[in-house]
Amino acid sequence: MSARITIALDVMGGDQAPRMVLQGAEKALVRYPEAEFLLFGDESKIAPLLAKMPKLTRRSTIHHTAELVTNEAKPSVALRTGRRSSMRLAIDAVADGKAECVVSAGNTGALMAMAKFSLKMLPGIDRPAIASFFPTMRGESVMLDLGANVECDTDNLVQFALMGDAFSRSVLGLVQPTIGLLNVGSEELKGNDAVRAAASKLREPGSPVKFYGFVEGNDIAAGTVDVIVTDGFTGNIAVKTAEGTARLFGEFLRAAFKYSLLARIGYLFAGGALRKTRERMDPRRYNGAMLLGLNGIAVKSHGGADALGFANAIGVAIDMKVNGFLDQIRDDMTRLNAIKPSVPPAQQTAAL
Amino acid sequence: MSARITIALDVMGGDQAPRMVLQGAEKALVRYPEAEFLLFGDESKIAPLLAKMPKLTRRSTIHHTAELVTNEAKPSVALRTGRRSSMRLAIDAVADGKAECVVSAGNTGALMAMAKFSLKMLPGIDRPAIASFFPTMRGESVMLDLGANVECDTDNLVQFALMGDAFSRSVLGLVQPTIGLLNVGSEELKGNDAVRAAASKLREPGSPVKFYGFVEGNDIAAGTVDVIVTDGFTGNIAVKTAEGTARLFGEFLRAAFKYSLLARIGYLFAGGALRKTRERMDPRRYNGAMLLGLNGIAVKSHGGADALGFANAIGVAIDMKVNGFLDQIRDDMTRLNAIKPSVPPAQQTAAL
Repeated sequence: MSARITIALDVMGGDQAPRMVLQGAEKALVRYPEAEFLLFGDESKIAPLLAKMPKLTRRSTIHHTAELVTNEAKPSVALRTGRRSSMRLAIDAVADGKAECVVSAGNTGALMAMAKFSLKMLPGIDRPAIASFFPTMRGESVMLDLGANVECDTDNLVQFALMGDAFSRSVLGLVQPTIGLLNVGSEELKGNDAVRAAASKLREPGSPVKFYGFVEGNDIAAGTVDVIVTDGFTGNIAVKTAEGTARLFGEFLRAAFKYSLLARIGYLFAGGALRKTRERMDPRRYNGAMLLGLNGIAVKSHGGADALGFANAIGVAIDMKVNGFLDQIRDDMTRLNAIKPSVPPAQQTAAL
Repeated sequence: MSARITIALDVMGGDQAPRMVLQGAEKALVRYPEAEFLLFGDESKIAPLLAKMPKLTRRSTIHHTAELVTNEAKPSVALRTGRRSSMRLAIDAVADGKAECVVSAGNTGALMAMAKFSLKMLPGIDRPAIASFFPTMRGESVMLDLGANVECDTDNLVQFALMGDAFSRSVLGLVQPTIGLLNVGSEELKGNDAVRAAASKLREPGSPVKFYGFVEGNDIAAGTVDVIVTDGFTGNIAVKTAEGTARLFGEFLRAAFKYSLLARIGYLFAGGALRKTRERMDPRRYNGAMLLGLNGIAVKSHGGADALGFANAIGVAIDMKVNGFLDQIRDDMTRLNAIKPSVPPAQQTAAL
């Protein structure tokens, strides 16, 4: 697919920056040859690398700044003191209409704080959420929030459902994604007040999303639904638990193949199949944590991502823009607000 | 190890009950030849099966009851109407001092409600927690709460830490287990109020446990600590997410081996190594969800467990008894209560 689109890059963010960022941008040009890049960062470091990348050079402009946000910086400090940082200037390029999306592999907390400040929230959305992809038995699914909000109320969860719906429509190309609320059981009475109230709101006639109901932890990898909605505390722990478990399985497998001569011989034949499995579980394939709910498109690449991972994160940002993510979420909000409450007005007043 | 101990069994609980329960008890006799079993359940179903198990017959007594708790029963209903059920009578045998521990593969919620009612809580413990084992890079660890309490306050989390400490000492044989609190980051300021306050309490000089600090989701499988403490909502979702991810990895692996002729040949050689890996990840090896915090020992076997899994659950109950779990937790409570608050009294009053 070809797309005329301008992407602002925080060239200084990420463990292997700036080289990894530039190589990622070059890789992204293969899939999106008409993309244009605004490169924010230290020109003295960028220029020598760019000199060896003629294709990327033709599609990009360097915007020099000597300042950057470190991985250790607290979000509040970065927000106050990092006004000339590569991360902030890249975000501001979106706020000012000079770019259509921003991608950074830098400090997540700082990126979230700056993006929230500079881009503002979409009308009707109270808090941003971090979303990401998961490999599943049926393909891939989207989960949010993965850590932006440690505590979430009913409205936050309902808004996350709409954001996840719009995201999976625009990036996964789903026509009517199914939405599940993560809980400790599938029965209506399970869970805390926030998830129960959010479920009853999403079940209302006229709900803008196709609500499946409650899902449990094992439903994430099973692919029971297309979008899994949860608070940032649980979501962060679930995603890291899944990563750790996949790593443990890989480690057990490696150990098992060293165990006997027979197994080593088997590896000579089956090595390709094993590599293929590890690739399918490879987080790089699913790279890109999307900052949803903002009035602009911002994608966080994993700090340890390589060029391939960063190129995928750029791809996600482009898909969001090209497929109208922001319009989609606005439509969903309009439909949510049009729901006629099923509770009689008298009772509602009493409840207030 | 040989142990003179009497175990009450809910013979009617579990998908494959009563056969699976009896076969599990027979298997357990191999490791614990001096164990005695009180078998609660329908004698007309138990007797014919037992007739073919001479070893188990010699070590057990049938206590007939025609009533049982179904998997679908609500805990409150089971508690009210199930006074003559096999589950309740098995628990009561521990409360009455006729048995030293109880094992059931039945309805978890009902087991928890009945055990709490009949056994009561240990002095100083407000709420029971469900604990289980996890395979890790370094062996195995213990995690709690896995779903008994959807919402937990600071005191609950601190008490869970003590319960996990006592449990891993008595069952895993650890001299000084390390305790981690599950959180979204390792920095002191991360997380919600309950986990931050619990951490500061566990860090106090004189704390009865060796507190490592906060751990993240990926630390579970990494084996960073011996005991992972969390609330029942997060814990339930984390354990099910890990199960689902392990199943997904196994599925991807199976698919990869079907992919090419070469891989199929490889499987002929490496099949043993792969089976070994799946075995290491097999939840049956880690069977037994312990109901901790009660004034008595109660172990829940997985409802879908087979005889081997049920035998393991019996083994855990025996280890808890023989290695003095209840005394250990009482010691920890005494040490916790002896901590002199590090906050000056004036400030404390202000905080109230």
